[in-house]
Amino acid sequence: MTDAVTQLTRELIAIPSVTPDDGAGQAPLRDRLAPLGFQLEDMSEGNVANLYARYGNQGPVVAFAGHTDVVPTGAEEDWTHPPFSPTASGAYLYGRGAADMKGSLAAFTVAVERFLARHPEPQGSIALLITGDEEGPAVHGTPVMVRRLAERDEMPDYCLVGEPSCSERLGDTVKNGRRGSLTGEMVVLGTQGHVAYPHKADNPVHRALPALQELVETEWDAGNAYFPPTSFQIPNVRAGTGAHNVIPGTLDVQFNFRYSTERTKDDLKAQVHEILDRHGLRYDLHWHENGDPFLTEPGPLVNALTESIRAATGVDTHLSTAGGTSDGRFIAPHGVQVAEFGPLNDTIHQVDERVAMEDLERLAEIYEGVLERLLTET
Amino acid sequence: MTDAVTQLTRELIAIPSVTPDDGAGQAPLRDRLAPLGFQLEDMSEGNVANLYARYGNQGPVVAFAGHTDVVPTGAEEDWTHPPFSPTASGAYLYGRGAADMKGSLAAFTVAVERFLARHPEPQGSIALLITGDEEGPAVHGTPVMVRRLAERDEMPDYCLVGEPSCSERLGDTVKNGRRGSLTGEMVVLGTQGHVAYPHKADNPVHRALPALQELVETEWDAGNAYFPPTSFQIPNVRAGTGAHNVIPGTLDVQFNFRYSTERTKDDLKAQVHEILDRHGLRYDLHWHENGDPFLTEPGPLVNALTESIRAATGVDTHLSTAGGTSDGRFIAPHGVQVAEFGPLNDTIHQVDERVAMEDLERLAEIYEGVLERLLTET
Repeated sequence: MTDAVTQLTRELIAIPSVTPDDGAGQAPLRDRLAPLGFQLEDMSEGNVANLYARYGNQGPVVAFAGHTDVVPTGAEEDWTHPPFSPTASGAYLYGRGAADMKGSLAAFTVAVERFLARHPEPQGSIALLITGDEEGPAVHGTPVMVRRLAERDEMPDYCLVGEPSCSERLGDTVKNGRRGSLTGEMVVLGTQGHVAYPHKADNPVHRALPALQELVETEWDAGNAYFPPTSFQIPNVRAGTGAHNVIPGTLDVQFNFRYSTERTKDDLKAQVHEILDRHGLRYDLHWHENGDPFLTEPGPLVNALTESIRAATGVDTHLSTAGGTSDGRFIAPHGVQVAEFGPLNDTIHQVDERVAMEDLERLAEIYEGVLERLLTET
Repeated sequence: MTDAVTQLTRELIAIPSVTPDDGAGQAPLRDRLAPLGFQLEDMSEGNVANLYARYGNQGPVVAFAGHTDVVPTGAEEDWTHPPFSPTASGAYLYGRGAADMKGSLAAFTVAVERFLARHPEPQGSIALLITGDEEGPAVHGTPVMVRRLAERDEMPDYCLVGEPSCSERLGDTVKNGRRGSLTGEMVVLGTQGHVAYPHKADNPVHRALPALQELVETEWDAGNAYFPPTSFQIPNVRAGTGAHNVIPGTLDVQFNFRYSTERTKDDLKAQVHEILDRHGLRYDLHWHENGDPFLTEPGPLVNALTESIRAATGVDTHLSTAGGTSDGRFIAPHGVQVAEFGPLNDTIHQVDERVAMEDLERLAEIYEGVLERLLTET
């Protein structure tokens, strides 16, 4: 085993590309992909650098989606090693972005180099969608690239997202989908008044309690083979000015659904309105659609991942749709098979973020195995 | 009928004694009471002027409790007449404090003058407890005077509070009690977490809903002949930081009881704890005791008021315990018969506060009638 992936990961960590990345963090990737014959296209928008790279002209297209931006470090003195000075210590390489997700970017780049050295004319194409804004608002990043590719009918067939997906050992988890996220911002309307004269007022907190309780107790679905049951949470409530003698005129309630493919945002909204209306609430309600759920059922991409993981690590991988959102939500709605696989996520977004150097090298083997399985005759 | 009460009310309004009053607002009263033979005693504390005045050495003691401080005016340009330039217009005298309660102070002072002119040696004593802090925190006002009088065993037997008690015409309402007020400040404890992983968190909003609903739906008592049913209100709730992806770790809930003499603060507290505990909530709860309920059943003071009102106005008065708290809550617990009677309260705390000049003169007749009935042989 060489340490080619660790070397490139070090180069990437050394560039402090805190979100959004203006492109500096992507330079080492451009420098490695161009000599291989990739067509590089700058899809930057605003202050966000986006790099689209493609090798080959025929289908199917296997894409890798990743990001070079990293979350802020917090106080650098809290780190054992400076966050942008990649440091090997024991089995680990330390630095901001080591696991999320500069290690994956390096592993895929090295995998492509090795794959093309053996198969210079693969039976299909390889693409990379590299954004500098996944950790930030994610408005000028992946959605922009996806929109442009869709306009010219160039969407990939398969998309491997390099997010750190494993929890205890490399290979234990592939994310083959994500739940949807839907937020409601509600103002329950009442009538303000003095606590001493409750009959002249209408307390929106009192009014709302039975409806909120029904929302909390509702079983929205039972989940399915791939998704846990849809969940409903109330992250924020607010009423009153602090005075103990004033009945408030309004109650602000914010709620959030994480929902499975058994539901759609439209039928969730309809059911919420039915409950609120049945309880006779007067309210204003605005919805924020944070992302539809997606699912990639076992098929060419998931199977290629599962087999490559077993070959490289001996681990039987687990398919999961748990966790927060990722840029996969922007790609999957276009009919693309999307799966996420990367290193352990136990230190991401934390002080002393790190990745096992052994895992980086194995990750390149796995990614290379995926290309092999999808782009060569078997 | 003279306009003696209106004249003194004008003098009092012209002094802008916005709460707390440092004593300037009390000077005209001292100037009128001293020549009558009242012993004046300065019971000021901190920046609050308190005046205790007493005429006579024997019991029973009939006291008048009132305040010279007024609430702020708001923007003076919103007033038809400048708030501290008393102005007669039509049947009304306009100015801040006209109804709450400089008119009552003037009426009682004139009533005392007339009463003592006819009965220089009444069968009992007359006292005045005048504070400069009823509209503010009320900590250095009436409670201080009551404490000192209790220490020297000089509590009055009857106390007439000059608060504006009438709603549609002078004489329609005597307040012979007030509900108690008890506030709970509760923090419901949960476990913070990410909305995407609800099984790792414990949302205190969800936890609290059934208990809060039971508190809202509970019938605390049915009231009694003098009190409406005890009421429970939630004036303030707060949870979350605004982020839609974080399950909050705590929920702040503030609630307030207005309670009848059928309940005590201790048994209300016990019942609340029983409900919260039965629902398995983890919580911190701090109580603020804003005042016990009090009731003065028909007897010498209430009867003297009722008869004097009928004689002066022809109105059959209504006994009520409704509305907010007053300084009567500090006096009644000492076994004093307390009743509140004053002019109409329809413009108090508002722009263009006013009082009917005819009512001011009638009010003096009523107060004089009370002194007559309680302090002379009948």
